[in-house]
Amino acid sequence: MTGTLTVIGLGPGDPRYLTPAATAALAAATDLVGYHAYLARLAPAAHQTVHGSDNRVELDRARLALEMAADGRTVAVVSGGDPGVFAMAAAIFEAVETGPADWRALDIRVEPGITAMLAAAARAGAPLGGDFCAMSLSDNLKPWEVVTRRLEAVLAADFAIALYNPISKARPWQLDAAFDIARNHRAPDSVVILARAVGRPDEQLRILTLAEVRGEMADMATVVMIGASTTRLIERGDKAPFVYTPRFVEVPA
Amino acid sequence: MTGTLTVIGLGPGDPRYLTPAATAALAAATDLVGYHAYLARLAPAAHQTVHGSDNRVELDRARLALEMAADGRTVAVVSGGDPGVFAMAAAIFEAVETGPADWRALDIRVEPGITAMLAAAARAGAPLGGDFCAMSLSDNLKPWEVVTRRLEAVLAADFAIALYNPISKARPWQLDAAFDIARNHRAPDSVVILARAVGRPDEQLRILTLAEVRGEMADMATVVMIGASTTRLIERGDKAPFVYTPRFVEVPA
Repeated sequence: MTGTLTVIGLGPGDPRYLTPAATAALAAATDLVGYHAYLARLAPAAHQTVHGSDNRVELDRARLALEMAADGRTVAVVSGGDPGVFAMAAAIFEAVETGPADWRALDIRVEPGITAMLAAAARAGAPLGGDFCAMSLSDNLKPWEVVTRRLEAVLAADFAIALYNPISKARPWQLDAAFDIARNHRAPDSVVILARAVGRPDEQLRILTLAEVRGEMADMATVVMIGASTTRLIERGDKAPFVYTPRFVEVPA
Repeated sequence: MTGTLTVIGLGPGDPRYLTPAATAALAAATDLVGYHAYLARLAPAAHQTVHGSDNRVELDRARLALEMAADGRTVAVVSGGDPGVFAMAAAIFEAVETGPADWRALDIRVEPGITAMLAAAARAGAPLGGDFCAMSLSDNLKPWEVVTRRLEAVLAADFAIALYNPISKARPWQLDAAFDIARNHRAPDSVVILARAVGRPDEQLRILTLAEVRGEMADMATVVMIGASTTRLIERGDKAPFVYTPRFVEVPA
């Protein structure tokens, strides 16, 4: 049982955001495992075997990677963003927990990466500069009632909120439902940011109000940020405004 | 008005977590501005001027940096972790909003970094693998009542929680108060992680239960993670357990 498995965060896409630790872990691997679109960002060496798979087969992919590690391979499982944020790390540990006992003895590591919300926040200014939450809006793995209960809780407590997996062809209405819930807690001119493909050539950042935003403006590659009540714009004439959430919260009168 | 200001995330401390984008931005700077302890990690070039300051003077530091950028300098403001997460980015934009109008025309950028909770989570496994929140426990900038209200909300909604700024000499009791609040919402054997100085030579990761954790076990360099009700350990004999939060939430019976 000498194999290793490293779950590697590739960051948002631009190689300038890939950490040296992640680069070194990628170079050390004998086998590269992941979603096709993430593997396509890499330039595998001649001695490396690439094992691509479709999206939404995370547990199958995790088990394949663990089997190869148990066979003594040096396996890199690649993940967009940070592997610990709505990505492959949890799937790997789910597979370990339910798999053969000897998988627990494997050397399993996680290499962090720049997650989408933090790359997007950096582009906009500092919209997550106060307390914030990260939620997956997908109801594939948890009931929609859990999603709405959590949304209500963090809106009422005035967190800024980053929504991952906001919309897909199979989940077309949930994002508009989330915006409707937000409209019960935030003013119409509250800030909403749609950040698509940050760090990639087709990057797009839209700064909108809660009144005007629509689910159809987002897609699977978008991270949606709903500001706290204190999130504000700094207008800059014909340049894009800065968006930030102050660190301070005023004492209520 | 040709100066630039870049707020740069240094990550948790290990240079292997510093992104190439951050490295390039540091190299381009004429002036390096920051807390002494962060500047001490760098090896300034001969042409670079270093402007160190004490902790907790963020706005003064921000204004100095903006003044130099307005004078045409290429200013790097360094921040631990990610500058957008309880760090210098929000302070810069607070200073811009309240400062001279011409500061708004400056070229201000944020270079994201690996924030402490994600570095710590990677070391432990995937404790933030489900929905999670990041909160500053400091009541220097917001009333303690806001902190407790937010904690109650996210505990009741079963988020995993990362607490930044958990304790200091001036704020000695707040962390134990937060654990007491958590004990009203989570079982005694719930997972709490204390991650100190991750990515630095004196790194320490402690995996505890909510029943046994005490505020005095943490310090200013610690990030505290309180698991969701679903956060669990994978025991590994004499090795440290993996800690993870499953991506899925079961349908309540």
